[in-house]
Amino acid sequence: MHTSKYIYGRNPVTEAIKEGLEIEKVFFQREITGEFEKYIRNYCKQKNIPLSKVPDVKLDNLSRKGNHQGVVIQISPLKYFEIEDVFTGDLENIEIAIVLDGITDVRNIGAIARSALAFKAKGLIMSAKGSGAFNEDAIKASSGALLQLPICREKNSMIAIEKLQQLGFEVLASDLKAKDLIEDYLIEGPVAIVLGSEDKGVSREVLKVSDRSIKIDQSTAIDSLNVSVAAGIILSELYKKIKI
Amino acid sequence: MHTSKYIYGRNPVTEAIKEGLEIEKVFFQREITGEFEKYIRNYCKQKNIPLSKVPDVKLDNLSRKGNHQGVVIQISPLKYFEIEDVFTGDLENIEIAIVLDGITDVRNIGAIARSALAFKAKGLIMSAKGSGAFNEDAIKASSGALLQLPICREKNSMIAIEKLQQLGFEVLASDLKAKDLIEDYLIEGPVAIVLGSEDKGVSREVLKVSDRSIKIDQSTAIDSLNVSVAAGIILSELYKKIKI
Repeated sequence: MHTSKYIYGRNPVTEAIKEGLEIEKVFFQREITGEFEKYIRNYCKQKNIPLSKVPDVKLDNLSRKGNHQGVVIQISPLKYFEIEDVFTGDLENIEIAIVLDGITDVRNIGAIARSALAFKAKGLIMSAKGSGAFNEDAIKASSGALLQLPICREKNSMIAIEKLQQLGFEVLASDLKAKDLIEDYLIEGPVAIVLGSEDKGVSREVLKVSDRSIKIDQSTAIDSLNVSVAAGIILSELYKKIKI
Repeated sequence: MHTSKYIYGRNPVTEAIKEGLEIEKVFFQREITGEFEKYIRNYCKQKNIPLSKVPDVKLDNLSRKGNHQGVVIQISPLKYFEIEDVFTGDLENIEIAIVLDGITDVRNIGAIARSALAFKAKGLIMSAKGSGAFNEDAIKASSGALLQLPICREKNSMIAIEKLQQLGFEVLASDLKAKDLIEDYLIEGPVAIVLGSEDKGVSREVLKVSDRSIKIDQSTAIDSLNVSVAAGIILSELYKKIKI
């Protein structure tokens, strides 16, 4: 079942951009070059839209053998926000931000969005590269939370973290090797929590720019928790602290 | 891709039972009756194996058009345990049990098994009716946790709860309408936590026989957390208490 909306062909795609439709992802024919390619590439860069160069057969599939002229775009079921429009770094009303560093599974992202709403996080920040593309199934899996929670898209986690730090956020990376427990963290202002993928964790360069690392108190019987479970536990601990 | 192992035909199925192979589920032709049907039905009842009566075309599919003679069994990748063999109700070394009441999604069950290991729960109890069937994909989704954690199968949650209470467990039902927070719960002995499905929650009759209800402190912005996230938060709270 197709639960994603696709637009294909140079004119329809140009029209969609002019109308300001929210684009989830752009698929280009591998060999495409020229002015049109450059225009789309710049637009994607500016708006942090993932762009994939794919073989013709993939474009044929996405367009159901339509006259795609080498380009197909997936329309997003979401509206994406800018970090600066969602977060203020307000000290009176402590804000919580969630940064997803390389988490691709949309079911996990949907579950994290539900926890974010339940524990009053203010928004979710994803990377344009290496993140899952949202379709209607992902929205459904999130029980609609992805439509209620502001979602931002940045080029990568490093840029997201820098922007949050400039707004006054303390950035906590979730890391199994951390010494400090999330339950002992003293909240003093706006906090961002960075979550990595289950196999790789938060990347080394992201750990370096984060202000500190925290972990969940657990036994060593298993390598790691499911990432949406870990996110839920960390957010529930932060929720206790902001309520006080 | 088939990642489940099926055995079909009356003799092979009888042999599998005699050899003591762990059976995940039995599929019977709708119209089947007679001695063989009775023998299998009694065996399933005794071992709490789910039994489905299905149309012929389903059996053709499962057996890949083999000569199934009206019966196909799915071999389990797990070994199932008896409640009495896993839990002792030990007061020195407080045991935690998890009862799944109508949770069918094997991905969620896999994530719960990971949290169970991480937070030192001793085992998971499922109902024969209305639970998801485990295959190799489910094991993989659990990062192998389903193979490390003892899993029990009971006819229904009521029976599981009764057995646990006889062993000295206090049974807590997770319920959004509960007054008490899990973080305030005083642990005094072995504890079982009952989790219901996301749409229905813990069933009314199960709430009635449970010793108390607890909830996770959260805002009312969204109906409920993903069930594996809720399980993880509750287990992490109990883990803090048993460590003290």
